[in-house]
This record gives sequence, structure tokens and C-alpha cells, in this order.
Amino acid sequence: MKDQVKEITSMEEDFAQWYTDIVKKAELVDYSSVKGCMILRPYGYAIWENIQRVMDERLKEKGHENVYMPMFIPESLLQKEKDHVEGFAPEVAWVTHGGEEKLAERLCVRPTSETLFCEHFSKIVQSYNDLPKLYNQWCSVVRWEKTTRPFLRTTEFLWQEGHTVHATAEESHAETIDILNLYAWFCEEYLAIPVIKGQKTEKEKFAGAKATYTIESLMHDGKALQTATSHNFGTNFTEAFDIKYLNKNGRWEHAHQTSWGMTTRTIGAIIMVHGDNNGLVLPPKIAPTQVIIIPIAQHKEGVLEKAATLQERIAKVARVKMDAGNKSPGWKFNEYEMKGIPIRVEIGPKDIENNQAVLVRRDTKQKEIVTLDALETRITELLQDIHESMFARAKAARDEKTYVAHSMEDMQKIADEKQGFIQAMWCGELACEERLKEELGVTSRCIPFEQVQHTTSCVCCQKEAKHMVYWGKAY
Amino acid sequence: MKDQVKEITSMEEDFAQWYTDIVKKAELVDYSSVKGCMILRPYGYAIWENIQRVMDERLKEKGHENVYMPMFIPESLLQKEKDHVEGFAPEVAWVTHGGEEKLAERLCVRPTSETLFCEHFSKIVQSYNDLPKLYNQWCSVVRWEKTTRPFLRTTEFLWQEGHTVHATAEESHAETIDILNLYAWFCEEYLAIPVIKGQKTEKEKFAGAKATYTIESLMHDGKALQTATSHNFGTNFTEAFDIKYLNKNGRWEHAHQTSWGMTTRTIGAIIMVHGDNNGLVLPPKIAPTQVIIIPIAQHKEGVLEKAATLQERIAKVARVKMDAGNKSPGWKFNEYEMKGIPIRVEIGPKDIENNQAVLVRRDTKQKEIVTLDALETRITELLQDIHESMFARAKAARDEKTYVAHSMEDMQKIADEKQGFIQAMWCGELACEERLKEELGVTSRCIPFEQVQHTTSCVCCQKEAKHMVYWGKAY
Repeated sequence: MKDQVKEITSMEEDFAQWYTDIVKKAELVDYSSVKGCMILRPYGYAIWENIQRVMDERLKEKGHENVYMPMFIPESLLQKEKDHVEGFAPEVAWVTHGGEEKLAERLCVRPTSETLFCEHFSKIVQSYNDLPKLYNQWCSVVRWEKTTRPFLRTTEFLWQEGHTVHATAEESHAETIDILNLYAWFCEEYLAIPVIKGQKTEKEKFAGAKATYTIESLMHDGKALQTATSHNFGTNFTEAFDIKYLNKNGRWEHAHQTSWGMTTRTIGAIIMVHGDNNGLVLPPKIAPTQVIIIPIAQHKEGVLEKAATLQERIAKVARVKMDAGNKSPGWKFNEYEMKGIPIRVEIGPKDIENNQAVLVRRDTKQKEIVTLDALETRITELLQDIHESMFARAKAARDEKTYVAHSMEDMQKIADEKQGFIQAMWCGELACEERLKEELGVTSRCIPFEQVQHTTSCVCCQKEAKHMVYWGKAY
Repeated sequence: MKDQVKEITSMEEDFAQWYTDIVKKAELVDYSSVKGCMILRPYGYAIWENIQRVMDERLKEKGHENVYMPMFIPESLLQKEKDHVEGFAPEVAWVTHGGEEKLAERLCVRPTSETLFCEHFSKIVQSYNDLPKLYNQWCSVVRWEKTTRPFLRTTEFLWQEGHTVHATAEESHAETIDILNLYAWFCEEYLAIPVIKGQKTEKEKFAGAKATYTIESLMHDGKALQTATSHNFGTNFTEAFDIKYLNKNGRWEHAHQTSWGMTTRTIGAIIMVHGDNNGLVLPPKIAPTQVIIIPIAQHKEGVLEKAATLQERIAKVARVKMDAGNKSPGWKFNEYEMKGIPIRVEIGPKDIENNQAVLVRRDTKQKEIVTLDALETRITELLQDIHESMFARAKAARDEKTYVAHSMEDMQKIADEKQGFIQAMWCGELACEERLKEELGVTSRCIPFEQVQHTTSCVCCQKEAKHMVYWGKAY
């Protein structure tokens, strides 16, 4: 069984099964007897480590410091901000016993850590000199989900959660937007995933936030994925937790606050934006292995030695591995296509004779012969080229699946027959948003920063439109 | 209040209070309303990040791969290995409700992850080709402790837990020892803490292990600290979880297994081995900031500019910060002594005139004047020298507090009057070990690899001695 790469369901036949096949067969995750949770296997976790490394470095460059908060939140602490507890209490895991003893107060396993950060901030923020506080933490959180799918929705997932406190409303707003831009930059520059930046509606915003901003991306199947969010709390939490500072004029003021997060969900986005019917296609910048060397006719004299030399050379410009195992080259080709490694290098006796190697890129499967003298240069170019092509293809696919609806009928047709992002005007009323959800099954994804005024009236009620909104079915 | 560095209790007066003062005043941790858990503040977490970075790199070099397992363990899974569940069940936190619903089966928050790894291994290990599996994970674990102290014993703590599976008993033994040596090397080379390597007695070994190995270090107050442990499970878990592989001869065999861990406890060891009555003293290799520059008379022309130039130069050889804040130099000296920064650089108008700077090392408080031409070289030398001096002092202190006991009376006297490591011969019987604990309050720390045969009879029962053992009071 381990001697063949098993085929996967084609995405046209069954997209959900295609997705599940990839996460299993590319060895990203495994299931366990813990319902709704997943095991991140070495290959899946290595992708997350690469995401972490880049984001952590950038966040630190911007002055953020990492901390670690307890994983438990006492029930009374969770209840301090009214909207927040309403939003999260129904979906938390409760610890009721420690050892043999029943706890006097239940603890929830953190679904997010605003309340813990607030309690801490209320102690360490006293004066304008103490501000801003720019904190971040890498951890796992738990939300009790009924239906789960690896990466997209799991009971426990990994993320970073940033929590900052500022003196003024302007500063907390600026931080929220700055981080949203960082997320967008990261998705586009590292994951090759184009995103729409915008604001969530009142209905869709985070429990306890004044404003939630989001980046939204579009999957192969036309469904949207909320890829990261950034929240401006204003003084909602600082009032509930009494986080005040003495300003320069000697007066006490409530501080202004933000939080923002990006999760292992991004790995689900990578699969569903770039993957194909041969498996995963990894963006080069976060691929654990960027180049795989496959020796051809490796029993012949000099082949393995030469392959090892190439590996040493390539290691100076890329993350490279060689597979000199006993499996056939054909088996190996399939295996590393399944794992989405950006470039395959084939080197056999004929290539050695001709001072060349064969390079095959994973995204387009284009083959080229490169002279060994140009090997490092060409691989560097190719990795960049693959990134750019992947981004361009993803953008073209998204644009092709982005529609404009002028009426409910339009919208229904698009939602039922085509799937994708639907741009439509909206009056700003909750009633219309709810009607679109109930009748057409679409939710508001965001009010994009880049507005286009298609018409002047709401697609639903025909009253005066306030915004153009992206609608869609979503993960 | 924030304008002065508050004094700390002296360690001679009250060691426990001295410790608590340091963790608070050096801003390593804060308390929260979550009983027994601690908040790792930026400075404390940055030390842990440095520990992680070094250990993670070394583990990967040795072929280990990182994974992430769920934080929950179903009760039935925890119960699969008899000794293991007996050891851990009394001290776990139980999740009984998800949202509004009572769970059909309780989940414990992982106190350690053997059972989850085993369940996974039983699925992915089939053939000798699949072995070894060398896995590691960085996460937090929870043990319901009655009395807690920051870093040393907390309900939740951070650690790495390695889990490996091997074909043979020889290989799992070799891995266990190899990792113990890695831990010892890390403590001595990075934390400047000398350790005793040895094996735990049957009584003190890990729940479910065949053999537990440990590194033990000695604190300022003469108490021992178990600093990291490495366990050889043999086939205890692989039999319980049916982890079998087909060997080269086509026969099924149970695999052999290890686990090993190092925790944020090491930060407690750093405090209690190196700290003094002015605060923390950080080993240079893991200090978040290695050099702090304090401008003197910074309002005078050219001082801040010169200090900034020095910062740029030093940044090429060390982790450096400058404090150009409004506080007085004296305040800053105290503040960075409290934080244990290895080298302070003072630069003022007179120094600039003389093309020099003043260097003050934290460990000995020795001052020296260095010509600016030699600044980088001298700082590099000094950091190495500080590391070596700290190690040498810690070793001398430990050796001075290491005693040999030939009788129960000897031992009692040492335990009561002196505190420290006590070397004494032991017959190997549980009864004697228990009697020493009950009557003298000492536990066996380890059977050291380096044996010295002081006498031929057990310190307790006078029967034939099997080993020399390190005994002591411990954290």
C-alpha cells in the first residue's frame, strides 16, 4: 500500500472530497480520537512554521513583543464585556474539575484572549508613558464547533493573536489598518493569494469590537474564505476593564484598543486556491522544501554523487532535498507533486554527459533543460517566477468569478449557478442583509475599501445604497 | 512609583521572597485571576524564545521534526497505559462541557502527550522503513498543582516534548541518552548551569517509563532542581497501543519508544543559580538584550549621537539596546541590573573626548575602560568571559555544597544545617529510599553516571550498597 501514491478524487467531481484527500495524502494532517481536532503532521506543521517565521519577524520589526497568557479564563472574567461573552460563551469548552475536585468557578479554555489581556493591561497601563503596548502571542485556541474540517474549522486551532493598547482613537484605528495591510501583504507576497480588503458589517463584526476589518479570498469552488481579521475595540473593553491612563495634562482617560489574528486556516486557503488534481501546489516562499532532486537511473555510476553535488549547490539558494530512496522515479514524481514541491530537478547519466539537468515546475508542469553552470541562477529565477505566476493565475481566477448583481434575481442566479464573489449595492440595513442570507444563502463578506458605485439603490430594498458590498457563500 | 527601582528582599533574609521579588520586578511574569497560572511578560517570554531557538535548531539538526497534537485527551485514551494514567489522572484538568452540552466522554487537558502520540504512531508505523520517527512539539501542558510558584511549578507551563519510535531497544536507549546529553550541553553551554547527569530510581521515574534519566542542578539555597528528563519506554506503550512494525525478516515486532522534555522551569533555574541581591543575572547567550548603552549627561551636545553610533557598531556583534529615556543614569543602572543585562556601556562627554567608553559587567560589577577602537572585540570577549565566569562560579558553589554522608546522622546534619547535594551509598531498596524521605526529608535526585564508591554499605540499612546516589531537598 505504501508503494504507490494513491490517486485523489478530482475537484470537479467532489470538491470537498478532493480537499480531504489532499490534506491526508500530502500528509499535512491526521485525525485522532479527539473529535474535531486535528494532528498537524511534520509537513503541515513545517508550513505553519514558515508562516510564523515571516509574520513573527515583521511584527517584531513593527515593535510588537511576544507574551504568553494562560489558556484558561475564569467564567466571571469572560463575562466582563457583554457583547464578547454573548458571542463566545455558546462555543467554549468548560473545565469543571481539577484532579478529583470540582472547581469553585468554571474555567473556559480560551476561545480568544481579550479578557486576559485586558486584565493584565489594567495593571500595567497607568500613564501615557506606558503607551502604546504592542503585544502578540502564538498559541492555540478552542471553539466548540459542530461540524469541522481540517484547517478550515476545527475545535482547536493555532494562531497568533495581537493585542494592543493606545492613547488615542486615531492610533488604535491606524494600528488596526496597519495590521490589515500587513496581513494582505503577507497573503499576496508569501502565499500568492490575492485578497480583498474591507470592513465587516455590524452583523458580521467580532463580538465586542467597534469595527472589524477583514481580508477575504476566493477558493477554487467559488466560496469565500475570511483569511484574517483586525478589530478596533475603541474603548469597549477598556471601559469594561477600567484600563485608564494619566494623560500629559494629568487627566485620566480610557485607553483605545485593538486585536487581530491569523490562523492555520491560511493553510486551507493555500490548498483551495492553488491545489490541483495532482495534489498540493505550494507557494515557493513558504514551501518547507522548495526543490526536490530525483536521481534517474541512480544505480549507474556517478549519478548519486552528482546529485549530491547539485544538492549542495542548490542548498545555497533554496530549501532542497534529494530522494535517493528505492522507489521508482515515476513514483517519486507523483509523490512530490502530491506534496506540492515547487521545483523538481531530474539528473541522470545522459544529463551528466551533457552537463545539464531537467527542471520541472509544479504549478504548470513545464519542463526545461538547464545547463549546470546556470543551475543556481535559474532556480532562483524560477522560484520567483512560480510565485508570480501562481499569484497571477489566482487573481485571474478570482476576477473571473467576481460578478456584479443589480437585482435579487441576478444575485440568486449567480449564487445558484456560478458561485463566486458578488458585488452588489446595499442600504446598510440589517434587515436586507438578513434577507439575502435567508433567501439566497449569501453573507456579506466585506464592505471593500475600494468602492465601485454600480447603482444608487440597494439590491434588496431598492432604497438608497450606502456601500458596495462583496457577498458570497463562505467557509 | 515608576520612578524608582524598588529594592528586593535579600536572599539571605528570605530566599522565597527574593525569588518572587525578582520575577515580578524584572518583569518576567505577572499573575492573573487564573489561579496557579502565570502570564509570561515580554522579557520573560523573550528568554524562552531564545531557549526555543537554540534547542529547536539542534533538534532539527539531529533529524527531529516538529508536529502539533490536540490539547485534549479523551479519558479512555489516557487510560490505555496503566502506570501512566495512575500517575497523571489525579492531577489533570477535566473538560466536561462544550458550549451548553455535556460531553459524552470527559476530555483532559494534556498533562503530557504520550497517549496521543502513541495513537498516531499506531497508524503511521507499519514497516521498518517507517522507523525511526523522531517527533517533537512545543506547546503548553496543564497539571493541577496545589501550591504553585512562577516557573518552578505552575498549573500550566510551556515546554517541548519529544516523542520517538525506534526499531530496537538499543536505538531507543541511545536516543534517550543522546537527548540527555543534549540537555546537559545546553544547560552548561547556554545557561551556564552545571548539571549532574544520572538515572532516576524506580520510585522517581516517569509514570509508564522503563527508565528515566535526568539532569539535576543546585540552586543558591542548596535545593536541587530537576532541570530536564529523558525517558526510555521500551515497549510499555507500544504494547498498550499496539504499535508494531514488520521487520526485515517479515515478522511483526513491537517498536521501542522514548519521550523527553524541557520546560520554562529552566528560567527558574537561571534565577536561582545566577541571581543576586540586585536582581537577575542573565547568561549572555540567552539574554534578550546582551548590552545596554546608557548615555551620560545626554543633554550635552554630541552624546546621544555618539551613543547611537556605538549602538550601530555593537549591533553587529551583540543584541544591544540604548536607553535614552528621561530617567537618571543611576536609575537606569539599577533597572538594568535588576533585569540582569550582561554588559552596560556608559558613554559621556569625557569618554567621547578620550575616545573611550566604560564597560560594566553585571555578574561581577567590574568596571573597565575600553578604547572605542577595540569596542566590538572587547564586547565579544567579555560576553564569552561572563559566560565562563558564571559557569565557573555556579560550579564552585555547587561543589562547595556537595557533601558526602556515611551515616544517617551525617545525612541528617547536612540536610538540616547545610542544605545541598548529599552523596550517599544506597542498597537499591525502596524501603530505604522511603525512610530517608520520611525521616530526613530528602529525596533521591539521581543515580549519577559518574559513580564514586564512598563505602560498600547502604547509608540507611547498612546492607550491601548498589549505587552512589545524589540526595537532597528539591523544588
